[in-house]
Amino acid sequence: MRQIAVMGAGSWGSTFAKVLGDAAASHGIERSIRIWGRTTDVVADFGRHRNTKYLGDIALPESITATMSPAEALEGAQVVVLAIPAQSLRAQLTDWGAHIPRDAVVLSLMKGLELGTDKRMSEVIAELTGLPQGQIAVLSGPNLALEIARSQPTGSVVACTDHETAQWIAESCTAPYFRPYMSTDVVGVEIGGIVKNVIALAVGICEGKEMGDNTKATVITRGLAETTRLAVALGGDLTTMAGLAGLGDLVATCSSKLSRNHTAGSLLGQGLDADQVGARMTQVAEGIKSAPAVLELAQRVGVDMPITAAVVAVLRGELPVDQLEPLLLARQLKSEGD
Amino acid sequence: MRQIAVMGAGSWGSTFAKVLGDAAASHGIERSIRIWGRTTDVVADFGRHRNTKYLGDIALPESITATMSPAEALEGAQVVVLAIPAQSLRAQLTDWGAHIPRDAVVLSLMKGLELGTDKRMSEVIAELTGLPQGQIAVLSGPNLALEIARSQPTGSVVACTDHETAQWIAESCTAPYFRPYMSTDVVGVEIGGIVKNVIALAVGICEGKEMGDNTKATVITRGLAETTRLAVALGGDLTTMAGLAGLGDLVATCSSKLSRNHTAGSLLGQGLDADQVGARMTQVAEGIKSAPAVLELAQRVGVDMPITAAVVAVLRGELPVDQLEPLLLARQLKSEGD
Repeated sequence: MRQIAVMGAGSWGSTFAKVLGDAAASHGIERSIRIWGRTTDVVADFGRHRNTKYLGDIALPESITATMSPAEALEGAQVVVLAIPAQSLRAQLTDWGAHIPRDAVVLSLMKGLELGTDKRMSEVIAELTGLPQGQIAVLSGPNLALEIARSQPTGSVVACTDHETAQWIAESCTAPYFRPYMSTDVVGVEIGGIVKNVIALAVGICEGKEMGDNTKATVITRGLAETTRLAVALGGDLTTMAGLAGLGDLVATCSSKLSRNHTAGSLLGQGLDADQVGARMTQVAEGIKSAPAVLELAQRVGVDMPITAAVVAVLRGELPVDQLEPLLLARQLKSEGD
Repeated sequence: MRQIAVMGAGSWGSTFAKVLGDAAASHGIERSIRIWGRTTDVVADFGRHRNTKYLGDIALPESITATMSPAEALEGAQVVVLAIPAQSLRAQLTDWGAHIPRDAVVLSLMKGLELGTDKRMSEVIAELTGLPQGQIAVLSGPNLALEIARSQPTGSVVACTDHETAQWIAESCTAPYFRPYMSTDVVGVEIGGIVKNVIALAVGICEGKEMGDNTKATVITRGLAETTRLAVALGGDLTTMAGLAGLGDLVATCSSKLSRNHTAGSLLGQGLDADQVGARMTQVAEGIKSAPAVLELAQRVGVDMPITAAVVAVLRGELPVDQLEPLLLARQLKSEGD
């Protein structure tokens, strides 16, 4: 594809624009990438091929140009990449969604459930743009932005109900350091990306309480099990959850010092309450916002999510972190799959 | 159960003896645990309820007594726990296997494939003791010994083809900080414990080369995928691999600074060869021994294990670690489950 719009010039949007530019260059393809940013500073910075605020001194491809006009960014785009905060998606699409070309594929990089509706991002996109499922794709995986911006190798998953669309998007973003796999399981890929932020809070709490690697690995494993139960109840696929968008993303987030959710959990584990954690952090930890919505969704479809429930109780101030341990390990002797 | 023999007084055998003692105490049950050690020093140390060499100053339950006589340890035991090096199991059982009471359950804590035969530990036990499958159990999970010895909470899996035996063993080792789940998938639990050491070498190599958390999470995910392919080909179960004995153990080992395999991989990543790594380490990294046997087993059953193959090539000096990156991520665009 020759023309791509990237809506959102934060760390992940900017990094993915770089992936798209490097992918085209590595295949000898001409490509124009227009990125939409909200501040003059950031847009001006792209003029010298940088996004200093989020990516430091990393050089960005010359194929990327920035604009503050959504209409200009979107005009003629074959693919529209959405990389804006999950909770502002509805307002943004209401504002400029009509400028998305009707034959474009919309690719969501966002991870979150909409508060109030409990909708996944692809569902909000479908509702507001009226595009068919076959033109809505999602991308998720073990993708800490700053590491990808530094060209450290990783995999990811592109999902679309239309396999050919998934393949077309995957080919367009295959760079020497970025390896997308294809999937038709949009639900599984999105649920993996949403719930991992909640589990990362739980693992962060364990770290804040100075628990060991066995305990954290147990929480990661049982956390993936409850994520999988939710995904399957919503129509997702077991295999997705065992892959890069499930296990891979969860492990990367729970291991990383770069993860905001991990950091927020660690502060909770040290005894701060949710308000104090919010005040301490410059960027919001998505898991803190999504956790109650995930629990609500799970209850609606009748899925037991004890770790998510414990995290929500801690965030509401109803459960002291010192009483968390017995809740993180299930209480009755049983077979593991039950 | 009232009487248990623990054969092997290393860090894991001693720690598990502590779990058995604490489990009995927490349920108000009288229990005698006899641990067999090979040196006078270690056996004498147990007299003052310590195993200083492996567990520092951690106090051990008074229900544990030590002996240098295998026959004395085994006499009247209802459960025989085996915690000796994988490659010496055959010689040890040949020596004192006849003293194992015929109605005892043998529980293997060992993780490795026997070199030459490529047999799992439970297979070697069955061959040499002649005991039926229903009396042979295995235990595996995210179980770094030193953390458990410090009473940090974790889960684990007890597997036996006879579900009631698995349940009996699981009940007998449930302590406030140790939570066993039950399974009938002996093959899956053993394969998880064996191959994770090889994948931990690969992750260690990435760390030695200072790659990021995305890369390591990708190797862990793809590593679990190839482990799962092998387990399933041998008759194991997908669910096991997504659980504590698969994913959980793999994540704990790959995260831990305490893991010998992880450390050995890190030295390989820094450019040392296999002999230099061996000379640098006081205890053997099991993955270095098992990797060629795992690859041989995989080839025999027709399973593709690219990460294991890459680790074996590095160990043989046939592949410089600098050329490892493209091998760790698969090369052709494809669906993730393929």
